[in-house]
Amino acid sequence: MAVYTEVREDELARFVVDYDIGEVLACKGIAEGVENSNFFLQTTKGPYFLTLYEKRVQPEDLPFFISLMEHLAANGITCPRPVHGRDGEALRQLAGRPAAIITFLNGVSPRRPEPRHCAEIGRGLAALHLGGLRFTMHRPNTLSVDGWRRLLSSCDGQGESVRKGLTDELEKEWAYLQAHWPQELPKGIIHADLFPDNALFLDGRLSGIIDFYFACNDFLAYDLAITMNAWCFEADGAFNVTKARSLLDAYQKVRVLSAAEIAALPILCRGAALRFLLTRLYDWLNRQPGALVRPKDPLECWRQLNFHRQAESAAAYGIT
Amino acid sequence: MAVYTEVREDELARFVVDYDIGEVLACKGIAEGVENSNFFLQTTKGPYFLTLYEKRVQPEDLPFFISLMEHLAANGITCPRPVHGRDGEALRQLAGRPAAIITFLNGVSPRRPEPRHCAEIGRGLAALHLGGLRFTMHRPNTLSVDGWRRLLSSCDGQGESVRKGLTDELEKEWAYLQAHWPQELPKGIIHADLFPDNALFLDGRLSGIIDFYFACNDFLAYDLAITMNAWCFEADGAFNVTKARSLLDAYQKVRVLSAAEIAALPILCRGAALRFLLTRLYDWLNRQPGALVRPKDPLECWRQLNFHRQAESAAAYGIT
Repeated sequence: MAVYTEVREDELARFVVDYDIGEVLACKGIAEGVENSNFFLQTTKGPYFLTLYEKRVQPEDLPFFISLMEHLAANGITCPRPVHGRDGEALRQLAGRPAAIITFLNGVSPRRPEPRHCAEIGRGLAALHLGGLRFTMHRPNTLSVDGWRRLLSSCDGQGESVRKGLTDELEKEWAYLQAHWPQELPKGIIHADLFPDNALFLDGRLSGIIDFYFACNDFLAYDLAITMNAWCFEADGAFNVTKARSLLDAYQKVRVLSAAEIAALPILCRGAALRFLLTRLYDWLNRQPGALVRPKDPLECWRQLNFHRQAESAAAYGIT
Repeated sequence: MAVYTEVREDELARFVVDYDIGEVLACKGIAEGVENSNFFLQTTKGPYFLTLYEKRVQPEDLPFFISLMEHLAANGITCPRPVHGRDGEALRQLAGRPAAIITFLNGVSPRRPEPRHCAEIGRGLAALHLGGLRFTMHRPNTLSVDGWRRLLSSCDGQGESVRKGLTDELEKEWAYLQAHWPQELPKGIIHADLFPDNALFLDGRLSGIIDFYFACNDFLAYDLAITMNAWCFEADGAFNVTKARSLLDAYQKVRVLSAAEIAALPILCRGAALRFLLTRLYDWLNRQPGALVRPKDPLECWRQLNFHRQAESAAAYGIT
């Protein structure tokens, strides 16, 4: 939850003049999104979403994200659509930050996903994977195996302060993943952060997927692993195989997994758990007094990692 | 900026059934309001505002706040109007908290108020004071002279950690104010927290006054003093007499100040500065690691207090 940059009303009034979206009626900072400053923007033409891109987003990546949302929206995925200014540009500057206006999507994020939500997100993720296949821009995944190594090194052995022996365990896990990470699986555009916070539901149906600012090119099944970790564990850390089965079955009704992808699921899930463990650990160790974002618990991912370590095959996830 | 309580979508769907406001289309936590959890609520009938009252608000005060907003709205003040449920109740429970739905007001808070904003807020404050005169409920100001004594004591001499000698200075200031605080000035409903954050503007005109959760009965001119401190000092601490004159002149076009009120302005401004200094100091000393609210600087009020100490009369504020 965050608003890092304040926008003055006169700046905002000048900013919207470059768009055909009417005049500003209201602008409220939204308490969501860890990476950027987000505002609900009500104008005389309707509701919009205003995002100011903060320091964690590389400005050179913004054209990729903007074009990707346009491509997906044009291919039937309900995701925000960037609004173009009168000059055709969807990206400009506001309050010293790169900024974009995107369409406002209705829906509410599920706080406690149920199997029916998992089925919806499985279907939606497969549709996103198919919808992204013809997208021609490319962004490497900076948070894959090599990126984990850099993150682990930058945590500088301080994992001990979170859990005794954690640094050693993570070093061993990284070495295992580096040695066994798949080389040849179907690749494409992945969302890479499809947590329940980034999914909107209306009347029990998925009404939108948001926040594409980790999207990149990588194994499609790795995205599925991230999504399983995000949706199929209970608050107490238990893996809910009913949810996993719902998610995987619904995914496969839209995009069938290859035998190699299914076989790779346990290691991909381990990698997905390590990836979020490491960014959370880094944020935890580097949290600032007075910061407006509450750091997430890295040990939640540690428990997930250990579950996947003991999974002998994708049968552990209820795949049939 | 804050959302302290998360609302599950199923709880929310059940909650709105008790109102005639349609179905939920979207619900976004709003990054404003230090005391409560606030949500922008879009329904099939339009936009609303959902507030969950957190621990700093006494539940027994809620009927006062709700009735006051209704009274003021019925008397021409543009403030949020509580929405009543089908059973006639405007207050109920959501996610274990007292909760209310209020109307959504258009407008944007000024980040850097100019003299024209000060004139608007002066006029609006006077209208609020007149509009509240016939309100029959009563809530004492717990943050007046006696309350400052309790706050100062609960800071436990730790003012030293913020500024050398601060505790002694505040003790002396409190003793002076306690001895010289006015006894007989016109009383009524005061907003008591009319900072720019709590005012909305549209096309340069005041479009709404929000956040009545400090409202109480006290000297009307004390509310004017709070508002002057909130609107007429520059970011660098300088008092802007043009802004003060704009505010006071506009106020008096709606409600003329008595000679006694004008004479009391300097001491009321000192009291207003001390009141916010003490709550900010308390919050500063008791800030929590990981808190989602950035504490405000108590020394900003200290500089205001010193400005008012050297004001020999209300002439220092440009009053004519």
